[in-house]
Amino acid sequence: MKLFNQVAIIGVGLMGGSLGLALHKRKLAGEIVGVCRHRDSLRLAKKRRAIDVGYVDIEKAVLNTDLVIFATPVGQIIELIPRIAPFLKKGAIVTDVGSTKVEVVKQGEKFLSPRASFIGAHPLVGSEKRGVKEAQVDIFEDALCIITPTLHTDKHSLRKIIQLWKALGARIEMMSPQKHDRIVAQTSHLPHVLAVALMLSLERKLIPWGAGGLRDVTRIAASDPFIWQDIFLTNQKEVLKAIEKFKLNLQHFSSSLFRRDKENIFSLLKKAQEKRNLISG
Amino acid sequence: MKLFNQVAIIGVGLMGGSLGLALHKRKLAGEIVGVCRHRDSLRLAKKRRAIDVGYVDIEKAVLNTDLVIFATPVGQIIELIPRIAPFLKKGAIVTDVGSTKVEVVKQGEKFLSPRASFIGAHPLVGSEKRGVKEAQVDIFEDALCIITPTLHTDKHSLRKIIQLWKALGARIEMMSPQKHDRIVAQTSHLPHVLAVALMLSLERKLIPWGAGGLRDVTRIAASDPFIWQDIFLTNQKEVLKAIEKFKLNLQHFSSSLFRRDKENIFSLLKKAQEKRNLISG
Repeated sequence: MKLFNQVAIIGVGLMGGSLGLALHKRKLAGEIVGVCRHRDSLRLAKKRRAIDVGYVDIEKAVLNTDLVIFATPVGQIIELIPRIAPFLKKGAIVTDVGSTKVEVVKQGEKFLSPRASFIGAHPLVGSEKRGVKEAQVDIFEDALCIITPTLHTDKHSLRKIIQLWKALGARIEMMSPQKHDRIVAQTSHLPHVLAVALMLSLERKLIPWGAGGLRDVTRIAASDPFIWQDIFLTNQKEVLKAIEKFKLNLQHFSSSLFRRDKENIFSLLKKAQEKRNLISG
Repeated sequence: MKLFNQVAIIGVGLMGGSLGLALHKRKLAGEIVGVCRHRDSLRLAKKRRAIDVGYVDIEKAVLNTDLVIFATPVGQIIELIPRIAPFLKKGAIVTDVGSTKVEVVKQGEKFLSPRASFIGAHPLVGSEKRGVKEAQVDIFEDALCIITPTLHTDKHSLRKIIQLWKALGARIEMMSPQKHDRIVAQTSHLPHVLAVALMLSLERKLIPWGAGGLRDVTRIAASDPFIWQDIFLTNQKEVLKAIEKFKLNLQHFSSSLFRRDKENIFSLLKKAQEKRNLISG
């Protein structure tokens, strides 16, 4: 069921490419325009049928679009919003799939309304892999997508974005951009920091000695540094808070170990195990 | 090819059970005796053909054995070695699959020789799962097995244990118990501490918001607390050292983020990514 005549996807990497594939498959867009600075990615995106047309110039690409979806690193979303603003069709909806929401939504509301409207969204999918070559048509199916309206959000546009994600097979939760950023700081950004700091701590020559545990814990450290520097910088306060809280728990564990306090070590391990059993897989 | 007439496996959980299955499959033992305090586990181990005979009394079980393999938590190995010593056949070989080696090997050498000999071993396999129901015949195939001889090690027994692990399909590396414990503190025990401290930091109500990253990073926190309390207590100094080193790297990251030092954040992420790319999967 066609929801939009023309959709522009800004950034045709793993996320943008997967979006294009899914929009095509479910016939949600009349035409899909892709924007990327790298012509190779545009070519591959076209070849994979993730987009119909490719543009290097973002201004040209958005002229006739009903829906613009940013699938670039968060820093670029913030940079590009003011640039596309004058070129948008009246009534266009702009959304994104970025991993932090407060700064992105603020920027969208500041530069786009009243001509166009901005709706922040964050499907909780993703991978340490990158590039349109890794795009998959089904990654949004049954995924959780957080949509972050504010007091200024245009209700009609919000409805359309909800409709879009439902049509893509996602489950939807709505919350404020602030709440979103506070949650993901703990569930996603903190784990990332730990995986990175662990890799930095590990002597290179010990890597061959790692088994499944090390592999699992550090997997996300292989993620794109460009994407993650932006995530950390746009969620600085919440990430720092999450790190501080983690440090207390780490201290708690290591002081129990220092004291050889068997009972306490056991109880910390047990508590962690019980909580972890609430997560499947 | 039969290497031992009778083998006793102490502890028929995931590791002991898998050993029994693999010994049977490759016909390496004439008879496999299993020891466990829980009759249910013995019954299931027999049913799965991981063992031929089950015993609750360890003293009775080891009377006629050529090879005793400890597959219990490390603390129990240390506790049981003196108990079985008087009952061992002359010339028996005792080994283990425990995750720390210094204390275990020290105990083995102290209480067993010259009547029997102790060879420490640690196959780098394992899982957050537990119990003989999770045993798998092929987990040692192509796994790395660290064998930790010392100056006191009996050469003949060492050769037999090397032969055993080769026959089970493992790749073998030899190093001192000290070096082993220093390495696994960094490659296995530290990641475990981080997964546990992360689970402790995570508010229970936020668990549904976790995606693949959180799932991977915390998977090992679901492991058996009984096994892990012993690992930490028998490798206390090296684990504490590894935690201290990690804390420096965490501090480095968080102070870069505090200063909003984009260049430094990027360079830390990039370094971690490059190192992580040396690990497959």
